[in-house]
Amino acid sequence: MIDLYTAKTPNGRKVSIMLDECGLPYEVHSIDLGQNEQFKPEFLAMNPNNKIPVIKDRDNGQVVFESGAILIYLGEKTGKFLSPSGPARAAQLEWLFFQMASIGPMMGQLFHFRNYQGEPQVYAVERFTNEVARIFNVLESRLSQVPYLGGDDYSIADIAAFPWTKLGGFLGVDMDGLKGVSAWLERVYARPAVQSGINVPA
Amino acid sequence: MIDLYTAKTPNGRKVSIMLDECGLPYEVHSIDLGQNEQFKPEFLAMNPNNKIPVIKDRDNGQVVFESGAILIYLGEKTGKFLSPSGPARAAQLEWLFFQMASIGPMMGQLFHFRNYQGEPQVYAVERFTNEVARIFNVLESRLSQVPYLGGDDYSIADIAAFPWTKLGGFLGVDMDGLKGVSAWLERVYARPAVQSGINVPA
Repeated sequence: MIDLYTAKTPNGRKVSIMLDECGLPYEVHSIDLGQNEQFKPEFLAMNPNNKIPVIKDRDNGQVVFESGAILIYLGEKTGKFLSPSGPARAAQLEWLFFQMASIGPMMGQLFHFRNYQGEPQVYAVERFTNEVARIFNVLESRLSQVPYLGGDDYSIADIAAFPWTKLGGFLGVDMDGLKGVSAWLERVYARPAVQSGINVPA
Repeated sequence: MIDLYTAKTPNGRKVSIMLDECGLPYEVHSIDLGQNEQFKPEFLAMNPNNKIPVIKDRDNGQVVFESGAILIYLGEKTGKFLSPSGPARAAQLEWLFFQMASIGPMMGQLFHFRNYQGEPQVYAVERFTNEVARIFNVLESRLSQVPYLGGDDYSIADIAAFPWTKLGGFLGVDMDGLKGVSAWLERVYARPAVQSGINVPA
């Protein structure tokens, strides 16, 4: 049994999708970010960075924070969606880090500056709009060549990227020219575990 | 023999430090970012995200991009600075992802907005100044309790965080109150491989 501390954000949804994909039983603990529950001492004891998601594995008491580290932990625990070695593993980890270091942070900043209610942030919105467009073009260059980010096989790289990438249109990315990305989004969303995990917490 | 494609940036220096720590022989290929060499077709064939660092392992032909993925690759290749399993591995990966997803992107944005030559970006500078200060406080909460980010042992988490964290003062972070971070910076910099790797390319 896994305890999952999460909220309705792309980073939280990566982990519920992974748990559903692996068929691991888990108990959801919703963290109310609007009520600053992520700053409570008991939460900070699990993650000093005050962010969801966090898991606790009741099998061994292991707590893990950072969604990328959680995906690797679960992949290695179950032997699923992360190749144990070789070129496939290298590719899966490359694209997992690309999601963690580029897709997530830059889409997050674009969302913030677009929705900032003070003085319009013209330069910052333009900067992050351009960077997110560039990132989607990088994804297109990959997904126009292979079915999944890691290559032939669906992996934690896809699970990490999907909840963010599906928000591209919402953030103004012109998805029409991105045939590879669009087909990949459909391919991933066709999976039952993605359709269930994306809706956690309910 | 490892081919290392790099430049004088914190992300590049992570990998030269790791190679020096592991005692792996490598050949440095300097990529001139000012001349846009990262957009040349032969570079994009290795990393479609047009960023250094990239390695090619001549032992097996494996190319790896994303500094976090490279550190894991080299840790697993050599059996060094990344625990094979258990709580230490989970902690090392947590803090590696914290560097990749928070320390690097947020310090990078702070550097950009502080140095932007157009209209002063008052709000964005304040936003990223505050976020970087918060991140350094998270590091302090960890490093006031344990000697290394992963816990007792020096690991790829420290190697990833060091080249960025040492720039904190340069970016206006008040380091005086951060006794744990400051002691850790000294502890890490005392290592000969850090002193050599941080200066690559020469």
